[in-house]
Amino acid sequence: MKNGNDSVKILLDENEVPRQFYNILPDLPHPLAPPLHPGTGKPASPSDFEAIFSKAVIAQEMSSERFIPIPGEVRDALLRSGRPSPLFRARRLEARLKTPAKIYFKHEGLNPCGSHKPNTAIAQAYYNMKEGVEHLVTETGAGQWGTALSYASLLFGLDCKVFMVRTSFDSKPYRKMLIETYGATIFASPSRETKFGQKVLLEKPDHPGSLGIAISEAIECVVSDPKKKSKYSLGSVLNHVLLHQTVIGQETSLQLAMADEKPDYVIGCIGGGSNFAGIAFPLLYDKLKGKNNAQFIAVEPESCPSTTKGEFKYDFGDTAGMTPLIKMYTLGKDFIPPSIHAGGLRYHGMAPTVSALVAEKLVHPVSYGQKEVFEAGVLFARTEGIVAAPESCHAIKAAIDTALECKKRNEAKTIVFNLSGHGLLDLAGYSQFLEGKMQ
Amino acid sequence: MKNGNDSVKILLDENEVPRQFYNILPDLPHPLAPPLHPGTGKPASPSDFEAIFSKAVIAQEMSSERFIPIPGEVRDALLRSGRPSPLFRARRLEARLKTPAKIYFKHEGLNPCGSHKPNTAIAQAYYNMKEGVEHLVTETGAGQWGTALSYASLLFGLDCKVFMVRTSFDSKPYRKMLIETYGATIFASPSRETKFGQKVLLEKPDHPGSLGIAISEAIECVVSDPKKKSKYSLGSVLNHVLLHQTVIGQETSLQLAMADEKPDYVIGCIGGGSNFAGIAFPLLYDKLKGKNNAQFIAVEPESCPSTTKGEFKYDFGDTAGMTPLIKMYTLGKDFIPPSIHAGGLRYHGMAPTVSALVAEKLVHPVSYGQKEVFEAGVLFARTEGIVAAPESCHAIKAAIDTALECKKRNEAKTIVFNLSGHGLLDLAGYSQFLEGKMQ
Repeated sequence: MKNGNDSVKILLDENEVPRQFYNILPDLPHPLAPPLHPGTGKPASPSDFEAIFSKAVIAQEMSSERFIPIPGEVRDALLRSGRPSPLFRARRLEARLKTPAKIYFKHEGLNPCGSHKPNTAIAQAYYNMKEGVEHLVTETGAGQWGTALSYASLLFGLDCKVFMVRTSFDSKPYRKMLIETYGATIFASPSRETKFGQKVLLEKPDHPGSLGIAISEAIECVVSDPKKKSKYSLGSVLNHVLLHQTVIGQETSLQLAMADEKPDYVIGCIGGGSNFAGIAFPLLYDKLKGKNNAQFIAVEPESCPSTTKGEFKYDFGDTAGMTPLIKMYTLGKDFIPPSIHAGGLRYHGMAPTVSALVAEKLVHPVSYGQKEVFEAGVLFARTEGIVAAPESCHAIKAAIDTALECKKRNEAKTIVFNLSGHGLLDLAGYSQFLEGKMQ
Repeated sequence: MKNGNDSVKILLDENEVPRQFYNILPDLPHPLAPPLHPGTGKPASPSDFEAIFSKAVIAQEMSSERFIPIPGEVRDALLRSGRPSPLFRARRLEARLKTPAKIYFKHEGLNPCGSHKPNTAIAQAYYNMKEGVEHLVTETGAGQWGTALSYASLLFGLDCKVFMVRTSFDSKPYRKMLIETYGATIFASPSRETKFGQKVLLEKPDHPGSLGIAISEAIECVVSDPKKKSKYSLGSVLNHVLLHQTVIGQETSLQLAMADEKPDYVIGCIGGGSNFAGIAFPLLYDKLKGKNNAQFIAVEPESCPSTTKGEFKYDFGDTAGMTPLIKMYTLGKDFIPPSIHAGGLRYHGMAPTVSALVAEKLVHPVSYGQKEVFEAGVLFARTEGIVAAPESCHAIKAAIDTALECKKRNEAKTIVFNLSGHGLLDLAGYSQFLEGKMQ
């Protein structure tokens, strides 16, 4: 490299992969507002969730324990699936920007599924397998979550069914092929497989779909299984999902310490909030302990601005109104975002924990338009050599802007962002951008 | 995992990444037949290659040194690009096959380009940059080599132009997009960019292309550069390319020793021969030193059977007859292979060093049909969770057959194969297979 011979990669040993998930609930400034039963309007009890979720994840959802042990079989599967992941220093990007800031990124794309999603898919498939579940059903946006759950299902011998938002289903055909290669069944949502899907299609036959609609279809599919051997699996939003992702931030904390760095800015994109929480929550815990004084920046698309323009209130997690009501930043359950390439960020709401931290001003939300996000992604590809997922390009854009702010103030700050996944199956978006056809 | 908690991954430290390339020339049983000048029919001198190759790689091509130091900048770039790569044990595949054999695979797909090709692309781009070259021109089949050279070119500040075989250009559109995202220029070959391309198109406007034709176009492009700032870069076949790939086998040798294993079977797919040589040559060197007693199996497609049905003779490396004559197994420079998904294996010839080892019966060639190869790939994806490139699926198929032979004989042999790349951009082939549409 022309930019010097210093190491660009910080690696961990397998024995440094976390043995516990970090649960942020006991460390929130105020207790989280409880989910409400949609019928009674009263706080939902664990049993209200048992029709759709495994008991183990319901217990984690409400747990007051700060650390939850990772089962041995889950940790083994994480080791098979790209853990520990490397922390890279983006020296070539720094040089191109001529910034005194140091930019680090955690690369979660180096596993068979290509994103951070296997971290929770593996845990969820394991817990369901242990409880005798045979079928997992889920929704997926851009397809990274559906890929990860298909993958985790095959590892633990489960059958898997995926409802994929139609706009992504059509624009990312390789995701469907990948999910089918793993042996799962996939439907474009809204589909004719469920009553709710049929209802939506009746009103609008060319409906582009949304994560809210796909969640409704997946839940309907689970509750109507006459054999009661099906469970629903969610890829983001809820606390149990986010805490599975904290392996990312725990590793990052170790790696930054190895590089003798304290983070000044921690950045991640947000759709439901899971990859952001994955890197941010453990570093926020470090901050509580006085180990850093970082600012936390959550990046969302301008076209789906739940935390920058939504309301902080109780709303349904899905469009049909089948889930408990949860308190979060939301654009309303009926909001249908435009068909952007970052399909993983097209969700009307936001994780309650992330929402609470935004409301407390402990997390700072920002938003960007699609074109400037792809422009950042191309700059990253042509300096660091890595094609990032359009979702991750939101984090790249914020990291670049932060580094340029540091340049103006001549400050050698330390920036770390989560590269949540690679963009190899999203190349049609890059191509559209390069050909000047992106709106 | 249900198949036991034993480790499935053997990792190296960065300081264990090789510091030398291994050159097999001094260890061949007989000296390699020299390349011949196409005009005079006499042995070609280094200067005959200078119009198209950098001086450094010409020196390596003919070197009698067993070990060639890896420059620091090249090694740094290799560390950025997925080195060291993990050696996995395919315990889930073993369990599915109920074989007593142990199956290991070296995973070369965990870098931004997704294949073994960056190992030589980085070295070649570096040497050219050092000699003041500004433009690199090459051909590519399935696109893995074109991707890698585009990537290496951006790392060293070079411009890059790629002629991609039309059948792959059309069937693997994401490869084109990836190469363009890296900033390179790409043409479907045969193209209108060169006189030879125009000639081929005049005879057959819908010509599917071949590696031989694309090589001719790339070389024509280089020799007609009026500024003399262009060089050609080759992704396989020649000795300098193969020796750059020996980082794979050197790492594998260390990793097998860490697992206290001696290989009994070493397997790789062959198109031009580079990934096979990469894993096999260092392990063959170990065998010469008495460290193992392995059999070496090279796997090619039935539809392009250069080593199983070709002749061992002097032939051109390209279709136009612009290269020196080299002694190799060949189907003849005018052989146009059918349009299979493993576009990287559609070459009429075979590396002279690999050819010599086949002729000496030190390497055993086998061939498989496309359907049985994809069947093996799907079994691998559904057990190990990794979608392999169609090229690599040839090695998987041979590894499975070898493991089943071991089962018949009840022998706990150790099999190691090279997983040369992932198949995420080749999913259309998997989809065709799963839908029963493959011939």
